[in-house]
Order: sequence, then C-alpha cells, then structure tokens
Amino acid sequence: MDTAMVKDKRDSKPRHIVLTSHPTPYGAKPIPIHWGNADPLKRGPLIGTLTDPTHRNVIGTHSGSYAIYRALAVVQGSLKTDHRADLTNTSPIVNIGPYPSWADPDKIVALDPFGAVVGDVFTDYFEKGYDIRPTIAITKAHINMPELYEAAAKGRLKLDGEIMKENGDLVVTKAAIEPVWYLPGVAHRLKVTESDLRHALFEQTGGMFPELITRPDLQVFLPPIGGVTVYILGDIAAITDPDRPVAVRVHDECNGSDVFGSDICTCRPYLVHGIEECIRTAQEGGAGVIVYYRKEGRALGEVTKFLVYNARKRQTGGDRADAYFERTECVAGVQDMRFQELMPDVLHWLGITRIDRLVSMSNMKYNAIVNSGIEVVKRVPIPDDLIPADAKVEIEAKKAAGYYTEGEILDVEGLVSVKGREY
Amino acid sequence: MDTAMVKDKRDSKPRHIVLTSHPTPYGAKPIPIHWGNADPLKRGPLIGTLTDPTHRNVIGTHSGSYAIYRALAVVQGSLKTDHRADLTNTSPIVNIGPYPSWADPDKIVALDPFGAVVGDVFTDYFEKGYDIRPTIAITKAHINMPELYEAAAKGRLKLDGEIMKENGDLVVTKAAIEPVWYLPGVAHRLKVTESDLRHALFEQTGGMFPELITRPDLQVFLPPIGGVTVYILGDIAAITDPDRPVAVRVHDECNGSDVFGSDICTCRPYLVHGIEECIRTAQEGGAGVIVYYRKEGRALGEVTKFLVYNARKRQTGGDRADAYFERTECVAGVQDMRFQELMPDVLHWLGITRIDRLVSMSNMKYNAIVNSGIEVVKRVPIPDDLIPADAKVEIEAKKAAGYYTEGEILDVEGLVSVKGREY
Repeated sequence: MDTAMVKDKRDSKPRHIVLTSHPTPYGAKPIPIHWGNADPLKRGPLIGTLTDPTHRNVIGTHSGSYAIYRALAVVQGSLKTDHRADLTNTSPIVNIGPYPSWADPDKIVALDPFGAVVGDVFTDYFEKGYDIRPTIAITKAHINMPELYEAAAKGRLKLDGEIMKENGDLVVTKAAIEPVWYLPGVAHRLKVTESDLRHALFEQTGGMFPELITRPDLQVFLPPIGGVTVYILGDIAAITDPDRPVAVRVHDECNGSDVFGSDICTCRPYLVHGIEECIRTAQEGGAGVIVYYRKEGRALGEVTKFLVYNARKRQTGGDRADAYFERTECVAGVQDMRFQELMPDVLHWLGITRIDRLVSMSNMKYNAIVNSGIEVVKRVPIPDDLIPADAKVEIEAKKAAGYYTEGEILDVEGLVSVKGREY
Repeated sequence: MDTAMVKDKRDSKPRHIVLTSHPTPYGAKPIPIHWGNADPLKRGPLIGTLTDPTHRNVIGTHSGSYAIYRALAVVQGSLKTDHRADLTNTSPIVNIGPYPSWADPDKIVALDPFGAVVGDVFTDYFEKGYDIRPTIAITKAHINMPELYEAAAKGRLKLDGEIMKENGDLVVTKAAIEPVWYLPGVAHRLKVTESDLRHALFEQTGGMFPELITRPDLQVFLPPIGGVTVYILGDIAAITDPDRPVAVRVHDECNGSDVFGSDICTCRPYLVHGIEECIRTAQEGGAGVIVYYRKEGRALGEVTKFLVYNARKRQTGGDRADAYFERTECVAGVQDMRFQELMPDVLHWLGITRIDRLVSMSNMKYNAIVNSGIEVVKRVPIPDDLIPADAKVEIEAKKAAGYYTEGEILDVEGLVSVKGREY
C-alpha cells in the first residue's frame, strides 16, 4: 500500500497519509528540471517546499537536517504549514555569476547554481503561487580571529584599513549553500549508475525517502546533510580575472579543533593559515576564498572520531603514525567518506578556473579540483611551526599516504617512531 | 505496494526492494526496547545497524546526517555492507553514570544513556551476531583557545599545571553523543501526541522514513541531524558531589562566530566566557561542563540565517533591535526551532542535579533545565565588554524578549534606537 489511514488528534476524521508517491499519468505534472541549462527559466525552478505537495519536483526538502526541527515546529503549532518565506530584502548583497560552468551539467551537480537568485528569476512562478525558496544566501560580515590579529601584530599581515581593519576585523562576503543533488550527475561523478546510487541512498540510510525508488522522474534530491559556507576576501571580480591572483583553502569541519583548538589535529591552525594566505592575496589585489564544508570527522561523524581516538591512544605501542588510518578503518570500515569528487562544484559556482595558491595538502582535494578542470598553480602546505604538539601522528601519516609535502616522507620505520601523547 | 522490483548493475537478477516495512505477526521479532529501565539488559540493545535488517529495532540508522555519506561509500564500493565496527580499545576513557535519571523515562528521551557502554553490557548479543554500535564516545583531549591563554596572561585564569597547563592547554574529557529519540517521550516532552509527532516527522520532511507511520511498534528513532558534544573540565566526580560547585554553559552552534568570529553576534565570546567560568570552577575543586549542540542558526540553518541578515541590514531604519526577531519570523515563520525542551537530557545523562553557575541568559534554556528538575543557583550573563560591536542589536532584543539580565531592559523606543552597522 502506498497510503495508510491515520488519525490526527486535531482532525475529527481519519485521513489518508501517502507513504510514497509514484509518477502519475494524470493531473498536474511537476515542473520539469533541465539540469545544466544556462537559462534558469529553461532549467526550471526547484520546488522543495511542502506548501503544495502537487508542486514538488524534488525529493526531500530545504535546510538539510534542519527539516527535522521544522517538523517539530509544525507539530507543536509554532510554524504554520502554509507559511511562505517573505523574501523581501533577502536577495544577495553581491552578484555571483552566472559563469560558463553553470551551463555545464558535468561541472555542477551538488548545488543549484541559481539557488541565490530564485526571488529575481522566478517571479512569474511566485505570482502563480509556487513556493520557491533560495538554497543559497549571500551576505557580508566583519569577522575577527585572535590568531589573525596576532599575525598582524607580528608583521605577517597588514592592517590596511579596507580588507583588514585596525582592530583586526576582516571585511568579507559570505555565502551559505544548501546541498542540492542532481542524482544523475552525482552518480556520474561517483562513477556509479543512478539506480545503484538511489538504491544505496534509500537502503543504507535505513529507508529514507522511498521516492528515491518510486520517483525516477524526480532527478533532484535535497539530502538531510550540512552544506557549505564560502568566505570571500577582497574583490569578487578578482576571482574570475585571469590577471589577478586567487588563493583558496577548502576546509572540512572539525569542531574539536576549529572551535575548541584540540591539539591532536592541524585543522584550525591550517584554516587560520589559509585565511592569512587569502588576506595577503586579497591585499595584493587578488581574492581569497575559504570553503568550509560540514563533513565532521571525514564525514564519519564525531562519535566514530572519538572511538578512533581511544583506539589510537590505547593500541599496543601507543598512538603511531603507521597505524593512523588503520584505526579509522577498523571502526568505520573506511578511512574517509568526504567524497571530494563532489567538492569542486562550489568552486565552479564561484567561476574559479585557476587557483594560484591552494592551501591544502590533500591529494584527494587536489585531484578532485584538477580533474574538474580547474588549474592549480601552487600548493601551500601547513608550516611546521603551526602543527600542534599531538598532531604529528596525523600529518606524518597523511604525507606518507599521498598528501602534498615539500619535505621528507617517512618510511614505515619512521612512521612507527612518530608517537602521540598517551592521553 | 510495499516493495518495488529493482535491478542493480552488479546483480544479474532483478530483486525486490522493500519500500517500507510493517510489523509482522510471524518470524523473528525485533528485540523489544523498554525505555527507562535502569538495567540496560532489560532496557534492551538498540540495533540501528543495517548488517542484518531482521535485527533492526529502531527507525533510521547511525551517525545522524552522515548516514548519507555512508550510503555513498557503500555504492562506490569502499565500504562493505557487512562491515562490523571493531570496537577494540574504543570504550569510554572514563565512566559516566549510571545515575538515577537514567531510569526515569521522563528525564532522558533524546539520547541513549547506555550509548557509551554497549560494548561492555551487550556482550551476549554481540556473540549472538547482533551488530550494535555505540551512540556515545568518551575520550580525553588537550584543547587550547587563544582568548583563554590571553585571559591567563591578564590574570583572570591560573595556569595551575593540571587543569590549565603552562602553555594554555586545557585538559578535558569530552563526549560525542548521537541523537536517539524515544518517540513517545519526545512527544510527551513537546506536549503533542506520538502519532501527531510521527506524522509531522514524516510529512514535514517530504516523506522521510515511512516506517514512522507503518511501524508504531518501533518507538526509537535515530534522526539524521547533528548531535551534541560535551566538554568536562575538572574532576568528573565533582559533577555529582553536592559539596562541590558545577558550572555549565549550554551553547548552540554558530559557525560564523564560533569559528570565524563574526561580530554580529555574541556566540564565541560567550562560549569563551563559559569556558573561563568552567576553568575557575574546576580550579576551585568543582567541575565545568560545556555542552555544544549542533543547532546552527537557532536550528533554522545557515541559508535562512544569511537571508535574515540581509533583511535586517536593508530594512527601513536599518538593523534595529525592535525588529530583530520579526525579521527571522518573516523568513522562517518562527523565531527559533531549537526546542530547548529536549536539551536537558544531556545534563541528566551526566547526573547533574544542581548547577551553581549557569552561563546562559536564555530564558528558554533556563526554563527547560529548571522544569526538568535541575536546580540553578546563579545565572551568569555575558559581560558587556565581551559584546562585539555589531551584536548590540541581538543582545538588546533578547533581553527585551525575556533573556536574563541584571541590567536595564529597553522599551520599544530604546530598542528602535539600538542600530547595527550598515553592512
């Protein structure tokens, strides 16, 4: 059965609830989506809202994981099911795009390039009653990190008054991007079939969204995961100006370091170093871009991360670089689930075609970027003096596994001798 | 139909895929869960893994949102579907609990109090082939934040060599906790019926997990959201010792401030202040607890957050405290979706019955904590000098809305005059 009879407390009569939908030969069809079309009107709007279920043309809904909290707000009565976002004054503070990559269905499959401009380009649809929401929001901010102010005090950064103010504030443009997956494109990117991808997404989550199976006609999925935030320093026009330099750091979330400064890894120090490179590049007349993905613990999540820490610290011989990845594999079954193949889309959304300084040592990130057609001129490793006390295990293991380095790569014997603190 | 015929590329024959399951009168039943039982063996193990679908006794699966990435790893072949976590050496580095609250089904409904000890208490089940994973991991770390080192340099904190080392490192115990929702309990906490809750979770997410509807016998749900991390300073025994003080800050994620130091809000400064209070309390012989929930943007997500920033900055009269909450309501339909009602469970898991210093001004957090039966002695507001330049709008609006303050609360005229920076 595709429906079940349920009784809501508030209703006096029982009602049908649709367990999963099927394509219908009759009645209103969802607005078709022609992914990769340069004209957003021909590409079609993405209707992920629930205000009118007959309008929906995607699987899932907005805000990633936060859809769950939205459900709580509805059941408690604080959110009306027919609420439509008032998008007055919310449009992007700067224009980004469109760029040639927006019309290349191979270049952008994990976000909606038109996600920021829905209020402007789809006005006719809004007037017809379609409830369309942005999946990208672009604003400006002043940010300030103590390490950067200290870098200025030490002479590594200039308080130029424009990009970096006297008090250390950085003037940035920032964009929040929700995940929007064009399933045929994501499958192609991962080198699997679309049906295999759909089956796995459905089965390996314990049965999330049977529409992944029953609606092959709905090719776009809004997954309940975190998205990505982009911070831009300097003149946005520099990003796509071949005569001006661009620095980029792609960073995957590590809450324990990024917020709390855990010394077992290099995450926040490397993020800060990336921002420094971005500031210098912006001050040279170029632009700096920080890309912050919500992929905690190599997308394994923090529970797995802490289980692995315990296994590392307690193993025979203690925390050692030669066993670094193995401990993760024992617990999680894999080393890494970040799927950097899906990462460069945000760079293409920004119109990036060349990165002069890529602040990353990851071979996976580098390969994904270069294979997607973006040129990388120089890779900037983390300076040795920024590596926290207990993070040598991580960094030596990564270098031995293929991460970029201009220094020595240890052999197995060397890796065995790189030991972490006991606890 | 509850099944569909699908064909995987790797299989030569088509197979049935189950779209949603129903309770079956025949065959193996899922192990029953008696929520709130003090004996974990009587409470029953939570089987959220997918290794054997006939063993599952919850809806959803592990790692919150990261289940989606797990699905990608399976389809790409890097993760074997029959992989079982090797939990050797992963068990908690310190024992937490059990506490009386663990046996009170009203006190803990949003996490599994036994989530950290599954490897020890369920050994018989493991031997019988059940694939059980921890939903809590407890480890230790050294953390270091520049603001805290500076606080020591200024004499506000002591480098005592144990809790705070000479180089500013803090020795902490930390726990990562995945969400585990006992649906009848969550419904009761939210003052709605369980069936209304299930319907909303299913419908308002666009059809996630029809088992929410078809499996009323499965009362536990592992939602695809972020969890919570706990940082403990000082002696854990102090947390439950009535003669020793306990300081707590409950913090909801704000990536823009917590990591990048955005000046439009008070988040990171207040977090740091909370950690300072925790350090001082630990150094007095008590304990300090930081609770960090993944509820970005009041659980509205970052896209909505940035849309609201734009609306605030561009409205007539500029960014004003009197319009602070209204701008959020216009875009999101609500002010706040964090549901603090579900938050105290982590405090009960820690055995907390009295908080001497609660570093929070939120009336919602305070009410949730106190209504759950935990005594709060003193509330610690954010010191004025820690409020960033552009965050006055936020803090004055919050105080006028009921947030705790020992100072003045502005009237509407006063709120209108509190203006934010233009951009």
